[in-house]
Amino acid sequence: MSSENYQQRRAFFDQLLTIYGRKPVLEALQDPGMQIYKLHLAQSNKEDGIIRELRQLAEQRNIEIEMHERKALSRISKNGKQDQGVAADLQLSAYQPSSKISQSHLESAPRRYLALDRITNPQNLGMIIRSVAASGIDGLILPRRGGAPLTALVIKASAGTLFKAPLFHCEDLAQELLRIKDDGANLCCLSSHAKESIFDYASEHSTIYILGNETDGVSSNIEKLCNARLQIPMHNGVESLNVAVTASLIAFMA
Amino acid sequence: MSSENYQQRRAFFDQLLTIYGRKPVLEALQDPGMQIYKLHLAQSNKEDGIIRELRQLAEQRNIEIEMHERKALSRISKNGKQDQGVAADLQLSAYQPSSKISQSHLESAPRRYLALDRITNPQNLGMIIRSVAASGIDGLILPRRGGAPLTALVIKASAGTLFKAPLFHCEDLAQELLRIKDDGANLCCLSSHAKESIFDYASEHSTIYILGNETDGVSSNIEKLCNARLQIPMHNGVESLNVAVTASLIAFMA
Repeated sequence: MSSENYQQRRAFFDQLLTIYGRKPVLEALQDPGMQIYKLHLAQSNKEDGIIRELRQLAEQRNIEIEMHERKALSRISKNGKQDQGVAADLQLSAYQPSSKISQSHLESAPRRYLALDRITNPQNLGMIIRSVAASGIDGLILPRRGGAPLTALVIKASAGTLFKAPLFHCEDLAQELLRIKDDGANLCCLSSHAKESIFDYASEHSTIYILGNETDGVSSNIEKLCNARLQIPMHNGVESLNVAVTASLIAFMA
Repeated sequence: MSSENYQQRRAFFDQLLTIYGRKPVLEALQDPGMQIYKLHLAQSNKEDGIIRELRQLAEQRNIEIEMHERKALSRISKNGKQDQGVAADLQLSAYQPSSKISQSHLESAPRRYLALDRITNPQNLGMIIRSVAASGIDGLILPRRGGAPLTALVIKASAGTLFKAPLFHCEDLAQELLRIKDDGANLCCLSSHAKESIFDYASEHSTIYILGNETDGVSSNIEKLCNARLQIPMHNGVESLNVAVTASLIAFMA
């Protein structure tokens, strides 16, 4: 394979999101708006009603079906306990590695991104993705681990916008944020204990707004990297907002 | 009873919110931050573990316990099928009838209120109440019927802010909005089909922003009353935002 081919193939595979489980995969196949690259089935599956239905839908839509040994399917789904012998690769049009947020990109205009540190509630994650897609903010940085995985629940809570939202995946959030900071962006973490109001914050630089876990906020190792700690001013003695609401306010701030 | 006494008593009772069910009432009694006026029990309850616990907690906190016939308790809870023979009156510090939003009040400064028309998801309602309390907007107008009732689920989703949020209850929303319009406020309904952006809307008058049902939006009889139909501009072909996100964006708009 030539180097150019490799780059193209890699870019293609970077866009794929693998989901698993009979019902989530069935729903994806039934939704004509959802681009699906491949259906993966375990050879050990009984050819019962739902497996037949999955096959038929895939054939109607000209989606390739690949058969695997049970163990190989577990490696594809990365969740052998819950995959029920079924997985599918979804093609997300705006899902890409966070390495795309390059120095030249960050310096060419003041960009704005959200980054999520261990958001565990799938409802919150889905709502955040929906607001990111709708707001026109430059993107959402999502580490692959530590937060809610991109499951059918998240797709539902995102009202289907997962497939068009500008999502940037990475492995280690702290490491990637440090790289982005070195490339010229400011890092701002949101904290209800911060003194500076987000409405007073202004910067000519690109900015990454980091939102932390629903219970304990942004991890201390990430907080240490930040140029600023910001809060949304609260009335009536309220301590904090729902994290999806916070994300939406930031995303829609002009 | 003198007329003044009657007014005072009425103002007091207008602040009460009756909740029901063994677990919700137990949680309310266990929460020292929650002001409780009275515990209501059906005489038909078996004096088992949880009923004894309710009694003990009420006695420790000097909360009056009133015993009722089963039918009378159903009238208090307004939900005999689900009250499990238990109800409690909560005192909400900022819960009042929408008649308080008077002409003189509306004319003395440009006030901003949200009004909810048939929001049925308790999670959404709780999040809206939390954002209203936190934002410092003048208040939330809530009809007593047609939407999610103020249950334990809503209290939980509001992160306890239900007890300090400026909530204005009314019976018939359309009728009350018409009265408020006559008293000098503009009525604006949010609609994803509207042409005018909410970010371009400006008025010197007090404004009521009306949010409609999660599926079918603002009722047509209410939409007809409105001075303006507004939308939040969307990117990436997204059709709409979660209603709690929409409410929060409006509440925090400076």
